Amino acid sequence: MERDLLKELAKPAPTKIVLLVADGLGDIPHPDYDNTTPLEAAETPNLDALARKGVCGRMRIAAEPGITPGSGPGHLGLFGYDPFEHEIGRGVMEAVGIGMHLQIADVAARGNFCTIDNKGIVTNRRAGRIPTEQGHKLCSKLNDEIGNIGRVTATVQPSREHRFVVVFRGPGLAPAITDTDPQVDGEPIKPAVARDPGSERGAAIANEFTKRAAWVLSDSKPANGVLLRGFSQAPRIESMYERFSLQCACIASYPLYRGLATTVGMDSLEVNGETVEDEFRVFADRFDDYDYFFIHVKKTDSYAEDGKFEEKAKVIEEIDRHVPMIMDKNPDVFSITGDHSTSTILKSHSWHPVPVMIYSEYCGADAVETFNERECDRGGLGIFESRYLMGLLLANALRLKKYGA
Amino acid sequence: MERDLLKELAKPAPTKIVLLVADGLGDIPHPDYDNTTPLEAAETPNLDALARKGVCGRMRIAAEPGITPGSGPGHLGLFGYDPFEHEIGRGVMEAVGIGMHLQIADVAARGNFCTIDNKGIVTNRRAGRIPTEQGHKLCSKLNDEIGNIGRVTATVQPSREHRFVVVFRGPGLAPAITDTDPQVDGEPIKPAVARDPGSERGAAIANEFTKRAAWVLSDSKPANGVLLRGFSQAPRIESMYERFSLQCACIASYPLYRGLATTVGMDSLEVNGETVEDEFRVFADRFDDYDYFFIHVKKTDSYAEDGKFEEKAKVIEEIDRHVPMIMDKNPDVFSITGDHSTSTILKSHSWHPVPVMIYSEYCGADAVETFNERECDRGGLGIFESRYLMGLLLANALRLKKYGA
Repeated sequence: MERDLLKELAKPAPTKIVLLVADGLGDIPHPDYDNTTPLEAAETPNLDALARKGVCGRMRIAAEPGITPGSGPGHLGLFGYDPFEHEIGRGVMEAVGIGMHLQIADVAARGNFCTIDNKGIVTNRRAGRIPTEQGHKLCSKLNDEIGNIGRVTATVQPSREHRFVVVFRGPGLAPAITDTDPQVDGEPIKPAVARDPGSERGAAIANEFTKRAAWVLSDSKPANGVLLRGFSQAPRIESMYERFSLQCACIASYPLYRGLATTVGMDSLEVNGETVEDEFRVFADRFDDYDYFFIHVKKTDSYAEDGKFEEKAKVIEEIDRHVPMIMDKNPDVFSITGDHSTSTILKSHSWHPVPVMIYSEYCGADAVETFNERECDRGGLGIFESRYLMGLLLANALRLKKYGA
Repeated sequence: MERDLLKELAKPAPTKIVLLVADGLGDIPHPDYDNTTPLEAAETPNLDALARKGVCGRMRIAAEPGITPGSGPGHLGLFGYDPFEHEIGRGVMEAVGIGMHLQIADVAARGNFCTIDNKGIVTNRRAGRIPTEQGHKLCSKLNDEIGNIGRVTATVQPSREHRFVVVFRGPGLAPAITDTDPQVDGEPIKPAVARDPGSERGAAIANEFTKRAAWVLSDSKPANGVLLRGFSQAPRIESMYERFSLQCACIASYPLYRGLATTVGMDSLEVNGETVEDEFRVFADRFDDYDYFFIHVKKTDSYAEDGKFEEKAKVIEEIDRHVPMIMDKNPDVFSITGDHSTSTILKSHSWHPVPVMIYSEYCGADAVETFNERECDRGGLGIFESRYLMGLLLANALRLKKYGA
């Protein structure tokens, strides 16, 4: 692990930082829309005014150019953590995404209901994609009937269709466990195997869970078996308070982002509703209670993933319209960016660096006139790795000591 | 070694990448030519049109600003390898440069014919720069008469004038061997000394070779001895296919570049002729056979090394004129850059970052209007290390999985 300079230099101060993350904010020009990006096409008078007074740039979320990050590494970077040092496993991401609360030693795995024939062969890895309601019922059945496995409890929570998450809790568990999912139909369920000695207990528990689940589900064909993969443990991360002396709040409508924020020790604030305004109102109400606010807007990403250019642009306009709700509180530092770009053309996360703006009384200035991708290319922040954003936010909040005499 | 993210994330796809390397492409403004660079002075309508649609930037070939790379590190960087992790020794570079095929355990060294007096003192380290034809004859003589040294064969191949390359092949060789060249006239040939225990056998072989060469050449004064330096072994590099799942072809007229490409596992395609058109025709003919094409144009560099501004600009125009031969094939990703800058004023490789352009359907856009050094300074790719170009090319070819959930 490299030296944690920010932790060494962070000092308390009576200043407040707002990080507004429009998920998947960056994009590439769309030929059907006059070769503009949604951010370029959107009318954003408030953000543009801030960009003129502030400094802008572009950020790579992953260390190397060309890498497209998922939401986990995307957000860890924004929070000032190296996404390659702190990997969040698939099982944990899924658990966090459906709102399960993990303790530090829990092992989580993603599960599928599947169909098994009388010779133990998996004939359908997704049990024919059973309806979500049936998945819910089967999960209740598992929770009621599987019982403790030794001193370990197994808690199952449904996701959509045939998907669920299982969390194992008990002494001596570690997550270096191979998947039981054979990945193709026509083969038996694989035994979970420990990849290190410390994970042997967990692997044995996973195999016992799989066996008991088959008993419990024996009458539930086509969903008469379970496949597990992505065994993982919540990352052991120093909290943002420990590192930066910041009391941090998360304002997000989606459980995944609340979960990610809690892994670095943020308080997750209750949001009534899903609109930008709903979220910003929580910010305004709780402004006095925290030093740092992570506000997450999901729909920029969702619309881009569906290829909906105009809708993505409209969410950006909705954000812009409500930005005064934030600025009226006079936070010392305001920053807007994304956790990655999402291309409306590719309908997926993309590798393109994400535009970022920082505004504070001491941020300096550059030549950027409007907040968008091409203008941010010539911003004073240049192109940098997102995990360094936190240092800039702390600096602008006068929360870092000088390095060296 | 750092984590090989690209290898982890690379996936096969039915897409094709073209990397066009104009050797020594970058340059600095020349006072005799209106303070333009050759790339600025050249008329390049085709490249400019691509630059308007694509994204541009500047690349540092070596990690730190200010470092001027040779052709070896220059190309390894472009191929996605860390040039500091995989050093290609002088002997290997020279061997590869004259078209010798090296096996993985061979030890290669550069040789000079020299003049030795009857007391064993080197009186002329270059044997008075004997003519190339004589060097050829002496090399044949050495190959005919030296014979095997134990179980090791020594193969000599002439380069220009007094220069040659020797390749030792046999069991138990390693290249940590000191030079026998005393570097000044008036001293005896130095014994080759092993710098580690594993190289002792190779050092003994080198000394025996030197002794036998003196016998064989005893009547060939002034070229009656040999000096060896730059002992090295072909680098043990994972191939581009292993790392990126790419079937790669090299199209280059000069053996050095073909040799460099084969060290990373590319197929070297036969080129009839030395013009840009000759090379591009091979590309067009073999387009269906490979995923990735490295096309190397030498003369941008050669003319710059000779200080010939206009000639360098003309080669750039020749490239531009034939770029449609490439684009007509609709490669998914097209990129043009150099392996380093070569300054027409300095008449040598230089440290200035090299301009780079990437064009694909998904590359995004920036404000660059013409492909040259000053415009690329404000491109959307920023300034980055050349070893990261491969990640961008793979990303644009949709050949990388997402990192993390």
